[in-house]
Amino acid sequence: MAKTAAKPSPFAPARLPALPAVAGVRFAACEAGIRYQGRTDLMIAVLEPGTAAAGVLTRSKTCSAPVLWCRANLEHGRARALVVNSGNANAFTGKKGNEATRITAEAMGQAVGCSAREVYVASTGVIGEPLDAHRFAHLLGGLVQAAAADRFESAARAIMTTDTYPKLATRSTEIAGVPISINGFCKGAGMIAPDMATMLCFVFTDAALPPQVLQDLLARHVRTTFNCMTIDGDTSTSDTCLLFATGAAAKRGQPTVVSAQESALAAFEAALRDLLRDLAIQVARDGEGLSKFVTIEIGGAENWESARRIGLACANSPLLKAAIFGEDPNWGRVVMAIGKSGEAADRDKLSIWFGPHEVARNGQRAPDYVEATVAEYMKGREIRIRAEVGVGSAEATVWTCDLTHDYISINADYRS
Amino acid sequence: MAKTAAKPSPFAPARLPALPAVAGVRFAACEAGIRYQGRTDLMIAVLEPGTAAAGVLTRSKTCSAPVLWCRANLEHGRARALVVNSGNANAFTGKKGNEATRITAEAMGQAVGCSAREVYVASTGVIGEPLDAHRFAHLLGGLVQAAAADRFESAARAIMTTDTYPKLATRSTEIAGVPISINGFCKGAGMIAPDMATMLCFVFTDAALPPQVLQDLLARHVRTTFNCMTIDGDTSTSDTCLLFATGAAAKRGQPTVVSAQESALAAFEAALRDLLRDLAIQVARDGEGLSKFVTIEIGGAENWESARRIGLACANSPLLKAAIFGEDPNWGRVVMAIGKSGEAADRDKLSIWFGPHEVARNGQRAPDYVEATVAEYMKGREIRIRAEVGVGSAEATVWTCDLTHDYISINADYRS
Repeated sequence: MAKTAAKPSPFAPARLPALPAVAGVRFAACEAGIRYQGRTDLMIAVLEPGTAAAGVLTRSKTCSAPVLWCRANLEHGRARALVVNSGNANAFTGKKGNEATRITAEAMGQAVGCSAREVYVASTGVIGEPLDAHRFAHLLGGLVQAAAADRFESAARAIMTTDTYPKLATRSTEIAGVPISINGFCKGAGMIAPDMATMLCFVFTDAALPPQVLQDLLARHVRTTFNCMTIDGDTSTSDTCLLFATGAAAKRGQPTVVSAQESALAAFEAALRDLLRDLAIQVARDGEGLSKFVTIEIGGAENWESARRIGLACANSPLLKAAIFGEDPNWGRVVMAIGKSGEAADRDKLSIWFGPHEVARNGQRAPDYVEATVAEYMKGREIRIRAEVGVGSAEATVWTCDLTHDYISINADYRS
Repeated sequence: MAKTAAKPSPFAPARLPALPAVAGVRFAACEAGIRYQGRTDLMIAVLEPGTAAAGVLTRSKTCSAPVLWCRANLEHGRARALVVNSGNANAFTGKKGNEATRITAEAMGQAVGCSAREVYVASTGVIGEPLDAHRFAHLLGGLVQAAAADRFESAARAIMTTDTYPKLATRSTEIAGVPISINGFCKGAGMIAPDMATMLCFVFTDAALPPQVLQDLLARHVRTTFNCMTIDGDTSTSDTCLLFATGAAAKRGQPTVVSAQESALAAFEAALRDLLRDLAIQVARDGEGLSKFVTIEIGGAENWESARRIGLACANSPLLKAAIFGEDPNWGRVVMAIGKSGEAADRDKLSIWFGPHEVARNGQRAPDYVEATVAEYMKGREIRIRAEVGVGSAEATVWTCDLTHDYISINADYRS
């Protein structure tokens, strides 16, 4: 049952960011022994009355029971609590899976004093194993009692699976001159190819914003952040990105906002996007077994969606990813990946750069291409590939990592 | 420049099939030193006047110069010769690439005494390196002189790149009682995710069939054979499947056929499909670095195309392929892959088998599932996964292989 202990990512941060408290939310975590031994695997957040929620959830046709539960809750968009377990995804667990989610939400509702429908649930880990909620439901009361505002790191650690470091980010911003905090954390290292949000990501702010405004903002910015990041092209059954706004800033004078288009939201929106991007990049930088972090920029495309699809075709190509691992400037594989994307591209206007080095221009090898120079560039830890596809002016950026022996080792014995 | 010497596939046939001559076609091959040393890398076929041609070519937007050349030739569908080189794909080589193809076809046209437009050209190997046709064009005359009918194996060997064995197949059939032969060979081991035909495949028959009939038959059966096979999801820029009919059987009394629907073609069509399927499976069984050959059967789908897409989503999932390599019966990854395909599937009616063992039934773990039994099954060389997705009655079968350390090693230093 033991999984391969992954080596820490070479991009693991030397120091984790310190996240200040966000008024209106408290956290706790504990070891429930759901699957792992000797580490926390259950975490909760308690949210003040009046908290609004937004979410972007996996589009998988085989999504997990907690995803279905959250989707139903998001119709009213009110939230009082969050319960997350790691070690078991409660996915493909049939009616028993729905039952486990309901038991969890009910127990948490009782502990907090709210409706089960105001409790959001997320699970991550192995697919297809029944999750016994009775093994941890009795712990929720104690966790609610113990919850404290400054436990972001401990919350982020409790939701990890094959992650080699917790992913945390914080931003300070303002709405109409009133200071606002946004904190977030997420997990994910494999089965990462967001087709919506990705993996588990929880963001908390003290802003006072109605659910529909939050939902508009979150959906808009997940699109260019988490949905532009991939590790292995394998979309998870459990992907969940939730954004909670406690509304505490209203007490400090934040005026009411009714639409995501209001200019008062400009700074908040920019900070939120920046935080989501930061977290998405942290996930790519902890990709299972990675040795290199890769940024792929596509320009000259027909539209943004097309640029994104071309970028993802490159980012998901096993051949290109293995070449990057091998420090081989094999730009022919970029050509192949662009070609297979099915998106509009003009072969004879295609130009490609590896870092600052132009390797292809207008459909053939660049005149100044010197393989040894580009091979030297490939030895770096961070690789940037840019392609201009010559049919328009739209751009997109996609983040990924290389495909390594360690990825195979980790995933050849994750389960048994 | 040396590539990693791949270990022979565990599925390399102990004995290659002996291919009898097909009246109207002769082969020759030689070492032209295009890229590799000490092996043949140039092969030709000379076809009798009156030969009809059909082809299915890559849909890549960055397809190679030879693909464009063949596509133009297929408009008239007449053929007198074929020239194939390995070591250089002549893809992404701009105007010089078109020029290299034209020089090759013209030199071959002169050697055979036909129009350059009756010469089909295919190239396979590295992308983006200029191909100097002058290095081998002068060899074509000698090859035409030396060509002989019984050289299928030597022709098949000359087109290999990372293949560990040549892929050959032969079938005997009849049209209206007249005996007909069909022989074919192909190459391919990586960059294999056919979005049409795949890699290079050449099929020769002595049947007398007009180009449009050949084209109908080939397109129909590439769909369920090569287009249902994948190694790494990376569609090549060079994929070319050509079918040549020399018409020699007309002299032995084969009546004229004008439509692919004629009942006289039933046996020929079945034999052709069987041969294409045989070759497609041989490619999957030589997938780069593979340790296991994998058959994925999808049933209960909305329609055949949907079943095929679900099968390919499984067959291209790095997580599932790594689990198979690790002999881990991780059927949760089958659930994930079905979910991410975007195709209709009913989570709560989904059932999955690994070989004879039911692992999931109606959306949850099968009641009789015993992990140790299924883990034992996973130790076999040939793995069969079946999923019923519960929304219709359409079926499709897809062939692939596992994702191994050797795949990474081969592709981390293919080029430099």
